[in-house]
Amino acid sequence: MFEKLLENLKLNPPLVHNITNYVTVNDCANIVLASGGSPLMADDINEVEDIVSISNALYINVGTLNIRTVEAMVKAGKKANELGLPVVLDPVGVGASKLRNESVETLIDEIDFSVIKGNMSEIKALYTNAKNTGGVDVQEDDLIDDQNIEEAIEFVKKVAKKFNCVIAVTGAIDIVTDSQKVCLIRNGHAIMSKITGTGCMTGSVMATYCGSNKDDIFGAAVIAITMMGLSGEKAYEKIVARSEGTSSFRTYLIDAVSLMDFQILKEGAKIEIR
Amino acid sequence: MFEKLLENLKLNPPLVHNITNYVTVNDCANIVLASGGSPLMADDINEVEDIVSISNALYINVGTLNIRTVEAMVKAGKKANELGLPVVLDPVGVGASKLRNESVETLIDEIDFSVIKGNMSEIKALYTNAKNTGGVDVQEDDLIDDQNIEEAIEFVKKVAKKFNCVIAVTGAIDIVTDSQKVCLIRNGHAIMSKITGTGCMTGSVMATYCGSNKDDIFGAAVIAITMMGLSGEKAYEKIVARSEGTSSFRTYLIDAVSLMDFQILKEGAKIEIR
Amino acid sequence: MFEKLLENLKLNPPLVHNITNYVTVNDCANIVLASGGSPLMADDINEVEDIVSISNALYINVGTLNIRTVEAMVKAGKKANELGLPVVLDPVGVGASKLRNESVETLIDEIDFSVIKGNMSEIKALYTNAKNTGGVDVQEDDLIDDQNIEEAIEFVKKVAKKFNCVIAVTGAIDIVTDSQKVCLIRNGHAIMSKITGTGCMTGSVMATYCGSNKDDIFGAAVIAITMMGLSGEKAYEKIVARSEGTSSFRTYLIDAVSLMDFQILKEGAKIEIR
Repeated sequence: MFEKLLENLKLNPPLVHNITNYVTVNDCANIVLASGGSPLMADDINEVEDIVSISNALYINVGTLNIRTVEAMVKAGKKANELGLPVVLDPVGVGASKLRNESVETLIDEIDFSVIKGNMSEIKALYTNAKNTGGVDVQEDDLIDDQNIEEAIEFVKKVAKKFNCVIAVTGAIDIVTDSQKVCLIRNGHAIMSKITGTGCMTGSVMATYCGSNKDDIFGAAVIAITMMGLSGEKAYEKIVARSEGTSSFRTYLIDAVSLMDFQILKEGAKIEIR
Repeated sequence: MFEKLLENLKLNPPLVHNITNYVTVNDCANIVLASGGSPLMADDINEVEDIVSISNALYINVGTLNIRTVEAMVKAGKKANELGLPVVLDPVGVGASKLRNESVETLIDEIDFSVIKGNMSEIKALYTNAKNTGGVDVQEDDLIDDQNIEEAIEFVKKVAKKFNCVIAVTGAIDIVTDSQKVCLIRNGHAIMSKITGTGCMTGSVMATYCGSNKDDIFGAAVIAITMMGLSGEKAYEKIVARSEGTSSFRTYLIDAVSLMDFQILKEGAKIEIR
Repeated sequence: MFEKLLENLKLNPPLVHNITNYVTVNDCANIVLASGGSPLMADDINEVEDIVSISNALYINVGTLNIRTVEAMVKAGKKANELGLPVVLDPVGVGASKLRNESVETLIDEIDFSVIKGNMSEIKALYTNAKNTGGVDVQEDDLIDDQNIEEAIEFVKKVAKKFNCVIAVTGAIDIVTDSQKVCLIRNGHAIMSKITGTGCMTGSVMATYCGSNKDDIFGAAVIAITMMGLSGEKAYEKIVARSEGTSSFRTYLIDAVSLMDFQILKEGAKIEIR
């Protein structure tokens, strides 16, 4: 499945419109480029429709939201829906504040998303209005492991049915489902949570793959998570070998995405499709 | 003193709310993670109280301020005071514009700070309404060295008394005082001023240590400055050995913070407590 | 010509006020420092005049514009004109949206620019109101090579005459002209378009050199482009030697600027003055 996804991206490199937070926006732009796409980062309400119109996919990330950008997100999302472009949502930290909950609710009401991606605490907050006291991090109760994986899968399938889109839950074991098909991904490394932006970047890579693979959104979500996880493993090996720390890890993570190809992916992917 | 501070952070890793500038915000988030905390970066006035409520410390940095964020800073600061959370202020570039002076005055009037951290030009501008024509850099007249250190200490003690909090002045020799105790730190390297964000990151590390060490704010300020200075020394050694430049220095600086432990700190710290 | 430009910067390191986008603002600040200047990044309309007043040059970049910042840009630009400071414009993505076109038109109407820098699609959009569907990237039709270079030069000279300033067009062959003198620069590497911010950083370096070389704006534009291109070549060599990717490339690019001197520049520059 990866071969076709990669080939489509190479043949039709997408323009990816990102409306995202100012913390990791530079990482998001660079990871789109590293993945083979071209990033557009406009967020003013007066130009988002024009920018969506020349794009192939839209990525919405609520990391540092404010009222001004939420309106721009809605406008951009509606335009993307109208034009049939894939739209990916990252509801960062939903559950941690009233503004965040209300904004994400508005986004989901107004826009048809292709993929919603988050950690388990965020996805739970989305589905059940649970409080998310971990901020942008997953809460301990929500960690996915081999003990609770079956239960987790059933839950995520329900979420996908409710929101009628692909749901991608990142964690030690990642879960991607469109409510029917399920894919588990066991790539990645714990150190990925020791830098800011791995989640945001995963969303940007997803939007990039969606942009060139409109007919396989599920596959696009899977390849993005696998690629990021595998790149995390390679980056971790490198800092261990060189006795380096978390900032070098960030550099090598993006490096690995830029150097990724079918062969590396095939050899390193730890995925299980059900 | 460092052992206890490090242990508290490890036992109770803090959530650190940063309201900061869009230039170095990514570095701030990454350095909080490298220090062992977890960063939250929300700055919309409608959610800062919710975010403060799940945090253990608040860091306010006026690097790129605008009217919208100043109001959010005040709201966040008051909430933090109400909840008894430590609040660290970095009055970046105060003295360089009327807006900056007025905003910082408002912040100091409305919020009880635990630590105010800046270079000598900023601290002077704060205390005496001096003009700060160096922008965000320290002015030549304000450099601290062995010749003027005694005079500088007396001045900083007065500032600490006036603002009733710990004052941390960074420079070739750093001075930390709560108006009684004084600590001088002689770690660091001149190249630290050749990248943006060392000051901001120092503030974020301070807030991180304050978050886990509410009962030793003075110590938290000292360990943060020492750790950053020592990390600067280690990063400088590395770029010299590898013939690299300022951007590699930035990477290795954050790396060194992420690799820091009691042993390294004990061996490398050049501190003098009076 | 480079020797004098470098010497002036060393003798009078400039304070460079950047009003730029939130995607690459950190890179811009770091490249100003790597070049030997000191960055100021304020963009609130209530302080830009104060900040311009202590600066030596102003850089305006419309990468992520919004109405608030356009007003601040105009105010800052007028103040810079009043004080006789060089002002550099980077009309990022002009042609891609109505807001972008109108904003850039306003800026050009209200401010006297010393240099306007962009890729060929942007410069064409500026001159002919052409649509720029490539977003922030150059469109294929607008690539400059040895076949169309003469035609391109004549066009850029016309643009320089129309806007009465130095025009710097970046591409595989860069063109700098004040409508009379022309300089072609053949430094650089294609990988430079695989990271975000090379264009923005080039603008910041230009403003830095302009700040210390008010009497040789043409030369300042040429040295900035040459230095960035040559640094790109050196960074590329390094990642090839170390089997690294695009993020390491970004690090080494800034490194190379920070390590640049007259000797390196003299040996590596591929410039042709006509």
